[in-house]
Amino acid sequence: MRVRKKPWAANEVMTNERIIQNAAEFKGRWKEYFGNDNPIHLEIGCGKGKFINELSAVNEGINYIALERELHVIVSGARAARGNERIAFIMADAGSLSEYIGEGEIERIYINFCDPWHRKRKWAKRRLTHRNFLSIYETLFAGYGEVHFKTDNTKLFEFSLNEFSDKGWRLRNITLDLHNSDFEGNIMTEYEEKFDTNIYRCEAIYKEGN
Amino acid sequence: MRVRKKPWAANEVMTNERIIQNAAEFKGRWKEYFGNDNPIHLEIGCGKGKFINELSAVNEGINYIALERELHVIVSGARAARGNERIAFIMADAGSLSEYIGEGEIERIYINFCDPWHRKRKWAKRRLTHRNFLSIYETLFAGYGEVHFKTDNTKLFEFSLNEFSDKGWRLRNITLDLHNSDFEGNIMTEYEEKFDTNIYRCEAIYKEGN
Repeated sequence: MRVRKKPWAANEVMTNERIIQNAAEFKGRWKEYFGNDNPIHLEIGCGKGKFINELSAVNEGINYIALERELHVIVSGARAARGNERIAFIMADAGSLSEYIGEGEIERIYINFCDPWHRKRKWAKRRLTHRNFLSIYETLFAGYGEVHFKTDNTKLFEFSLNEFSDKGWRLRNITLDLHNSDFEGNIMTEYEEKFDTNIYRCEAIYKEGN
Repeated sequence: MRVRKKPWAANEVMTNERIIQNAAEFKGRWKEYFGNDNPIHLEIGCGKGKFINELSAVNEGINYIALERELHVIVSGARAARGNERIAFIMADAGSLSEYIGEGEIERIYINFCDPWHRKRKWAKRRLTHRNFLSIYETLFAGYGEVHFKTDNTKLFEFSLNEFSDKGWRLRNITLDLHNSDFEGNIMTEYEEKFDTNIYRCEAIYKEGN
């Protein structure tokens, strides 16, 4: 993603209370942070936040944590979310998830159009659907959890289906052409709106002891 | 598939001992038919038999049953198989599988480029990867079995992945572009050789009680 620098970013990140400065302190106590027992869903790499903000608007009974490492991107999502206490933005890399979220706190994870890391084989471990990441996600789930995954990268989708399967996760609602499928309620990301490419999507279900 | 009528087909089907005339009599006793305890693999819809004949040539420790309903097609495969006592051809429709093969007799099933039956929704039940067919395959397996599936039809592949998953089968070695994948040892069917289209492939694993 090309990132346009925003002169207002530094100020926004300091003053917008939707961006949690001391996020690590809430590890294991996110229900306390949100002030209720609603399920918590996580988006890894929320970009400019169009997806998570629209998702939150139609799911008032869900709390959301949105992870994004790019300052000049996360501020857009957080600005649009001002006043919505059901979303918490964390500026961090997926690799440090466990510093911010405790065991069993998450019920569902969204991953949309993440970096395919396809040029070098040794980069496979950086893919957000690599089995090492799935192992981390398993710890965030309380025995059961779902990953909802979208990409337009054929090789990454193929890789991801195999990683989920090899890890013993169950696949569901696989589509090889989302925009021409029966799937209802798709929320378009910025990327999806901008580029008219073929989109793959699936849901992968983790169940402890399966 | 366009079927060219062969004037020699009627004679071939009557005289070629690789085509089993009284196949139903061997239901439950195929190991006896083959005269050994080797695993038995099944191809449903073997067409002109290029795939099954080449597969048999490189797997001497496996016995094969090849199912094909078209007279003018099965005779080609059976003619090429003359003298190979490790393949038995049955001229029958997939819907009557259970008339010919007993419970627990099969370890692996190959399905290559079957009819996608995609024009009408009500035809979904005719697809060889429909859950009703998977239920039949489960009875042919002895607690464990594999389906190795190839198609060039995107909608059929998508449908099949979901059917396998929904039935609780485990997916493995999924590729969305077989001819440009790392998969080794692919045996090309007539169809694959003739048409240069994108090929999908997967293996689906059934395990009793999973």
